[in-house]
Amino acid sequence: MISVGIIGGTGYTGKYLLEYVKQHQKILDYSIYANSSAGSQLLDIFPELLGVIENQTIQSVNALSFEHDLYFISLPHGESLKYVPMLLEKGIKVIDLGGDYRLDSKELYNEWYGFEHSSSNLLSEKVYGLVDIANEKILNSNFIANPGCYPTSVQLGLIPLVKKFSDEIISISTVSYSGTSGAGKKAKTELLLSELDGNVKAYSVNKHRHQPEIEQELAKYGMKSPYAFTTHLLPIARGIYSTSTVHLNYEVSEDEVKQIYSDWYADSKFVRMRNTPPELKWVVNTNFCDINISAKDKTVIITSTIDNLIKGASGQAIQNMNKMYGWDETLGLLNSNFIKA
Amino acid sequence: MISVGIIGGTGYTGKYLLEYVKQHQKILDYSIYANSSAGSQLLDIFPELLGVIENQTIQSVNALSFEHDLYFISLPHGESLKYVPMLLEKGIKVIDLGGDYRLDSKELYNEWYGFEHSSSNLLSEKVYGLVDIANEKILNSNFIANPGCYPTSVQLGLIPLVKKFSDEIISISTVSYSGTSGAGKKAKTELLLSELDGNVKAYSVNKHRHQPEIEQELAKYGMKSPYAFTTHLLPIARGIYSTSTVHLNYEVSEDEVKQIYSDWYADSKFVRMRNTPPELKWVVNTNFCDINISAKDKTVIITSTIDNLIKGASGQAIQNMNKMYGWDETLGLLNSNFIKA
Amino acid sequence: MISVGIIGGTGYTGKYLLEYVKQHQKILDYSIYANSSAGSQLLDIFPELLGVIENQTIQSVNALSFEHDLYFISLPHGESLKYVPMLLEKGIKVIDLGGDYRLDSKELYNEWYGFEHSSSNLLSEKVYGLVDIANEKILNSNFIANPGCYPTSVQLGLIPLVKKFSDEIISISTVSYSGTSGAGKKAKTELLLSELDGNVKAYSVNKHRHQPEIEQELAKYGMKSPYAFTTHLLPIARGIYSTSTVHLNYEVSEDEVKQIYSDWYADSKFVRMRNTPPELKWVVNTNFCDINISAKDKTVIITSTIDNLIKGASGQAIQNMNKMYGWDETLGLLNSNFIKA
Amino acid sequence: MISVGIIGGTGYTGKYLLEYVKQHQKILDYSIYANSSAGSQLLDIFPELLGVIENQTIQSVNALSFEHDLYFISLPHGESLKYVPMLLEKGIKVIDLGGDYRLDSKELYNEWYGFEHSSSNLLSEKVYGLVDIANEKILNSNFIANPGCYPTSVQLGLIPLVKKFSDEIISISTVSYSGTSGAGKKAKTELLLSELDGNVKAYSVNKHRHQPEIEQELAKYGMKSPYAFTTHLLPIARGIYSTSTVHLNYEVSEDEVKQIYSDWYADSKFVRMRNTPPELKWVVNTNFCDINISAKDKTVIITSTIDNLIKGASGQAIQNMNKMYGWDETLGLLNSNFIKA
Repeated sequence: MISVGIIGGTGYTGKYLLEYVKQHQKILDYSIYANSSAGSQLLDIFPELLGVIENQTIQSVNALSFEHDLYFISLPHGESLKYVPMLLEKGIKVIDLGGDYRLDSKELYNEWYGFEHSSSNLLSEKVYGLVDIANEKILNSNFIANPGCYPTSVQLGLIPLVKKFSDEIISISTVSYSGTSGAGKKAKTELLLSELDGNVKAYSVNKHRHQPEIEQELAKYGMKSPYAFTTHLLPIARGIYSTSTVHLNYEVSEDEVKQIYSDWYADSKFVRMRNTPPELKWVVNTNFCDINISAKDKTVIITSTIDNLIKGASGQAIQNMNKMYGWDETLGLLNSNFIKA
Repeated sequence: MISVGIIGGTGYTGKYLLEYVKQHQKILDYSIYANSSAGSQLLDIFPELLGVIENQTIQSVNALSFEHDLYFISLPHGESLKYVPMLLEKGIKVIDLGGDYRLDSKELYNEWYGFEHSSSNLLSEKVYGLVDIANEKILNSNFIANPGCYPTSVQLGLIPLVKKFSDEIISISTVSYSGTSGAGKKAKTELLLSELDGNVKAYSVNKHRHQPEIEQELAKYGMKSPYAFTTHLLPIARGIYSTSTVHLNYEVSEDEVKQIYSDWYADSKFVRMRNTPPELKWVVNTNFCDINISAKDKTVIITSTIDNLIKGASGQAIQNMNKMYGWDETLGLLNSNFIKA
Repeated sequence: MISVGIIGGTGYTGKYLLEYVKQHQKILDYSIYANSSAGSQLLDIFPELLGVIENQTIQSVNALSFEHDLYFISLPHGESLKYVPMLLEKGIKVIDLGGDYRLDSKELYNEWYGFEHSSSNLLSEKVYGLVDIANEKILNSNFIANPGCYPTSVQLGLIPLVKKFSDEIISISTVSYSGTSGAGKKAKTELLLSELDGNVKAYSVNKHRHQPEIEQELAKYGMKSPYAFTTHLLPIARGIYSTSTVHLNYEVSEDEVKQIYSDWYADSKFVRMRNTPPELKWVVNTNFCDINISAKDKTVIITSTIDNLIKGASGQAIQNMNKMYGWDETLGLLNSNFIKA
Repeated sequence: MISVGIIGGTGYTGKYLLEYVKQHQKILDYSIYANSSAGSQLLDIFPELLGVIENQTIQSVNALSFEHDLYFISLPHGESLKYVPMLLEKGIKVIDLGGDYRLDSKELYNEWYGFEHSSSNLLSEKVYGLVDIANEKILNSNFIANPGCYPTSVQLGLIPLVKKFSDEIISISTVSYSGTSGAGKKAKTELLLSELDGNVKAYSVNKHRHQPEIEQELAKYGMKSPYAFTTHLLPIARGIYSTSTVHLNYEVSEDEVKQIYSDWYADSKFVRMRNTPPELKWVVNTNFCDINISAKDKTVIITSTIDNLIKGASGQAIQNMNKMYGWDETLGLLNSNFIKA
């Protein structure tokens, strides 16, 4: 049994993290820390949790204790930098759900995030927690950078193919659509229902911070081709749907490609290979990533879908925790009870 | 041909006002005035109008000219007070789309709007512009208070019945649901798509400013019974759906009630009596109000629906203008062209 | 530990019933029976359950076994009549989620359902399972008629008030809005997303089968006043929002009414009294019913909301089962795990 | 002034065709023909048109007259074949909104549509009506194959680039998302709001009939590279959003590419080049196609959006008619009146 701290637990991601932590059989107790919500009552922030979770006062990050075994950090970009070094120094485990340590090089932070990384020495210490791709480094690690939501959906869909055909691939492009909860809970006119009802738009074209994350990781599996990534907003709150098109100089059979994926994910509890393009609703409120492969001539089209707040954030974080401690990877994650509270 | 000024033309209502004005065959020219948007280009605020409306600079209300024959005012509560007296004094016509002059008594403004009315002498000068209910006072009037969106849907549905059965009615209650555009364009967390997707909630119960407006007007048609009014937010941008339940001490036949409404609206171009409960989509983007009557035993249920931004605001304002000038009431409003730009 | 049969487990309600049954700690095993889906694989009908529930062949109701301790029946109107008498005769427990036994009199079935009830002797044997209203008859009963979705939301909101003020109430009206899943999974043009997107409409006005159910039950708590009930379709899949307006000949204080409700539901695990109008999203995917009271002058407005498929069907059925067997009422229902599979 | 026949005017596309025809200043009169709806009253099919369009009886296609100057055909695949040859033989003009004559070769119909083309001699007679791309052949032509909805959005976005860089392009992929109205009005479970609310899915991957149409037309502008096309369903009724990724072996500057498009569409009334990715809502209910270009390194990303029922069907058909007769291309299409009726 461990004790857990949640730093920044009052946003959309934080809520699910909290619910997972609350009911996890290996977690004895937990505390919640936040910035602007400090001093508030938990049930004022999440009234839907009445009767499900005991009320408690949100504590201030300024008075962060170091009494927990593991801290989940779910803060805006640049904020994790303030807490990670001191926690690690004290030998405390950290799972960071933000982007502050996902990239491997200081330079990429200057270029894509626009800040000078203040603890770049830790970039090589973190383990990138794409946990469904076999990664024994997670076990016993102290510091996990939890992957971004888009990158999780994209990489789970592309890595097996890239690894196998890196020499034959001539181009890859991904078009992703996300629900609005990925943009956070802050009030912005462009995120009003009045603006987005019945609407769709691309955004951050060629500028999305998840692009260097995807390129960095795919390169580790051999990607040499150009890669393009375009993100769009869906007029719904939850879920990511990613469609990747891979052009090769080689005619692959659909059966061959499907076999590669089946083999790769044979033991995975959370990646489900599908014979038809998956529906986003199949994965909403779950930690699953559903993937379909379609190949014709020299082109492979891969559709993959996740819940951005669960598999793309809190669910994967819990799965990483389970793996860190050597527990069953599905603990607290595969219950068929959909009661969301 | 007249010249028109639009004060506050950059919100959701303003956009449709602008489009109506732009194409109205009796309007020679127009200017747009605003507060915070002053100095902006119109097409930066409404990029969808590119190719439809010529770009122009939004002028400041602080430099309001008095060169137009008629001004439409579409400002937040309390703001019309600043402009209406001076415009009327100069003999200029005004159609106010806000609530500052809809109520008849100074006291109601203290109670429901929370401000001291600074030109309460004008409250009795205005004509309440519920234009589909025969109101010859509109013709040649100088000052119209354009009805609220909810009150338009509710009153068109209730007045014929109230007028006929005021002595027999024992209670009336209206439950209205509105799209979010009624709440305006200002960024608020509670209006984010992430909060409202798949969601519904009642709000301002027993506190909505449209309640005294409805009660004031229904009283003029004889209402003596208690009246209850509850407003809700729909997870869509446009439209209002009002369901009024009238309990009587008298058993009415559905045919009798339907005949009353048919007679009442026989010449109306914009109220459409329906044999089934109307669908909200039938009226979205139009100036129509669709109404259905269902009676059983001593109860009459009336459903009525409008587009909150058109019939509930800009469309009715144009219809009022047409009537003020003695033009065909449908000018610019009944074109079957749905091109919305 | 008991063994359970689900008859008609392939619709929207059936899916959640199945998930609840699958994970319930007191249920040892279960079988699924259906009509048109007989012979199909469960995972072909619910592909989203892959990895959560073991696949199995849906059995035919024509080959219904009698080996289970309890049967849940989730079939269209008129279909339960075929199975309930023979199951009860064999001493097997039944929870019927349909409407075939909810009403108390044979005549009401002729009038509202349009069929001749073939086992009307059982109408008085059933216990009406509105389980959050203290009902000790459920314990040890063999036959529960699970309440309709609308009636559940309406009655939980009205019974405490009706019971207390039956002599003072002069009229009650309820306006309910429901997501489309309540209309079932059968293909109909009027239920297409293309028809309902951004749309709202009233339906079955003065003709809804849930009206006599509500009137029958409220009468048991003393209701003498006229009652009106109007149902509407929301452009979303899940949830019911009911707004009841009660006119009295007596001025009640809001505090007084709130106290009545607090007392009534003091021990309830699933009715949550709220200080603001509840949001539908607070209850989606849960077995909760959230209620708010607003009183002013002689009028009380009650908003109540549930998930139509959970509290309005499968969740309440499980709660009834728990109560029948004397288990903790919350078993399998209050887990904070929202994983829906 | 001409007289017009609409064959198949009772679906989603037909309604808008009807409204355009009704108000077009060059159209004197019109008749509506249909199959299963023959004998119905127009206002029973489109109740929202009450007060906007005169009621009329839908005539049967079996009693098709030949008295009109021009026929619009809006029928399911394979149905236009029955009418086009006889109309053309009589010297009557035809604009076919279906797919029966869009492809140039008989073989493609066998492969992609699964039928033997019965008048393949006419395939070379038709003019493919992508009217915003300069095509003087439309003027004075008798027979227009109106482009598919997806192909319209995709080709307007790609043709200028393909024409310029055909030798440098190494791959093109398009990911398109469409509202559900593109799937028609026929009742199917998979198109229910209950199934699609909050949902997204790819469909017809590598099998969509619009793929050969796009490839055929892009080839005419020089495309030699592989092309991939993936279609998805959005949980909204209206609009198409297409994102095309073009990989080149040549580093292009964004300015250079933007200039190519600006030049190309300088005189276009309906293609609007945008400096940011367009929003789908900007074009809904209009005949516009909005396009944005983003280029970086050797990749160009093009987003383009249209209303599938207007620019992707009825609006483009009217624009084609205008061009056929040598009228102003914008007649009846650029009114800023959004009243949709």
